[in-house]
Parts: sequence; C-alpha cells; structure tokens
Amino acid sequence: MPPQIAVLRYGHRHVRDYRVTSHCCLVARAFGADKIEIEGEEDKSIPQTLESINERWGRGAEIEFVDSWKKRLEHYSKNGYTSVHLTMYGLPLQNVEKELRKKEKLLVIIGSQKVEREVYEKSEYNVSVTLQPHSEIAALAVFLDRIFEGKELSKKFPKAQIEVEPVNKGKKIRKAK
Amino acid sequence: MPPQIAVLRYGHRHVRDYRVTSHCCLVARAFGADKIEIEGEEDKSIPQTLESINERWGRGAEIEFVDSWKKRLEHYSKNGYTSVHLTMYGLPLQNVEKELRKKEKLLVIIGSQKVEREVYEKSEYNVSVTLQPHSEIAALAVFLDRIFEGKELSKKFPKAQIEVEPVNKGKKIRKAK
Repeated sequence: MPPQIAVLRYGHRHVRDYRVTSHCCLVARAFGADKIEIEGEEDKSIPQTLESINERWGRGAEIEFVDSWKKRLEHYSKNGYTSVHLTMYGLPLQNVEKELRKKEKLLVIIGSQKVEREVYEKSEYNVSVTLQPHSEIAALAVFLDRIFEGKELSKKFPKAQIEVEPVNKGKKIRKAK
Repeated sequence: MPPQIAVLRYGHRHVRDYRVTSHCCLVARAFGADKIEIEGEEDKSIPQTLESINERWGRGAEIEFVDSWKKRLEHYSKNGYTSVHLTMYGLPLQNVEKELRKKEKLLVIIGSQKVEREVYEKSEYNVSVTLQPHSEIAALAVFLDRIFEGKELSKKFPKAQIEVEPVNKGKKIRKAK
C-alpha cells in the first residue's frame, strides 16, 4: 500500500500567492494526496475552486485553512505521519524515495518564498528535487509521482460528473462512467 | 542519448502570469531543457531572473521572448523537433513516454489558461499528465522527469559559482567544485 498523503502549504500570502497556492492544491489533488492544509492568510476562493473541481471531476483531496503549521505538524506526528519538507537544500529525492515509499503516512510540507528555520528543524526529512532553485509546485508533483510510482497518473476520482476522453488532437469530455 | 528539449511557453500575460511563467522557466532549466521561448507580452525581468540563476547556479537553459508561437513551431519542426503540447485532454503520458524518449529533439509547448485550438491541431502530440485539471508547471516537471528517466535530478550545471551541499536539516551552500 502506498502511503497516505497530507500536504501542508506553509506561509500563504493573500492575493500575492493566490495562483501558486491554487496550483499547489490542484497538483496535490490530481496526484493523489488525501488532504491539503494551508497555513497563512485565509482566502475562501481557493477551497471554492477545489470544491467545484471535486464536484465535476470527482472527489479528491479536501482543503482547509489552518492557523499554525507547528500545531498541525505536531498533530500529524502524533497520528503516525512522517513529515517531509520539500526544499532545494534537502537530501536528494532519488536517495530517499524508496525509504519514504515504505512509510504508512506522509505529511508533505511545501513552503512559499521564505521558510522559517524551524520548518527545516522540525521536519523529520528535508528532501530536495534537483538541488536547483525552481518551484514548489513542480517539487510536489515529482515527489508524489515518485512516491506513488506513477500509479496516480491513472487514478480514478469517485463521483465524477465528467471525465476526459484522451485524444491526440482537440478536447473531448464525456459523462463519467 | 535523451532528446534535446526546447520549451515554448504560450500566451504569457504581463504581470498576471509573472510568477507562473517564472516557475515554468525555472523548472525547464532545473529539469534539463536546453532552451526556453516565451510567446506573449514581453517582461524583461523574467530573463533577468533566469540569467542571475544561470550565473550563480550554473549555465542551464537560456530564455527568449518570441513573437509568434506558430512561426517558432514551424521553425522547430523544420529543424527536426517533434512537437508535444502538454494538456489535460491529450494522450496519457504513461502511454507515450517510451515513444517520445526515442526522439532526437522535442519541442514541449505549455499553455497558460486559454489555449487556441490551433495549438492542439498543429502539435504532433498532445499529451496529458493525469487527465485532471492541475498546473502546467507540474506537467512540465513530471514530463521532463519521465523523458530523462530521473537523470536530470543529479544534473551538473557548468560554470556554477555555488552549489547546494545536501543535508537533512538546515541549508548549506558551498563553492561549486
């Protein structure tokens, strides 16, 4: 069984981070996370967007704004989650992915531009995807793709109203089977 | 030999798309693309950001703003590139990745929110990463990770001034070897 995944987005700033946080949430859902929590300035439009996607494209991760990343990390740790902070300064993904895949539950922490030192210290793992500066959205996607060994690419989302009919040209959507 | 990769970002809008386009460019560089072209409203700060990263972290993809995606696609096609548009409506990545890995050169097209029908039609391949709505940044990263079979994760960037010394806690940067 692959691990259960909760994603904690750290330090969301209203307006400024809207699109990047939205992309993080959509990626967490599409790549099979079970839960998304956002720490920072609350913006109801982000859960609304995700909810409307969950209604049309099938039930995936639910989203929630939370007050304190520290309390949430403690909560998850007590509940058997191994915490993994994605950062360009951490251990290379390819060196730890096998080990992480065996865990029962993972809490994946992704930061915005500035991350407090405490996040590095309190996370059990700090993991890097390439050791180069890039994007927390990309890091999350590649991390989940590796943890789920590609199986998430064909994940079925329950109670979908519509689904894509894959074609090499154009766009086809059908009623979900 | 893995394919040479050029990335074409379609339909960039000034200010509004700044962060998302920047993430796309950083991902293209970090995951081993050779060239990035951006079609849309020019913003010099994006090439400047990438240039400063290329200076400090090592030479990777160079960036350029271009006038017409159509002309660029024609140019690349004439030069032996196979064009691949990443979209949630395309053929599942897992079904075509083997075939694409054998190509000598790939032009990877990533759109912003609205993509003209012609992009779908003129691209040789339309490829989906999950068949779910998510993020072009994530799609690009997972696509390149699959095409390069993970080798890009430990890519060395020439002429770097600094590099990360991977650690499980904290941040360490050293002079590049």
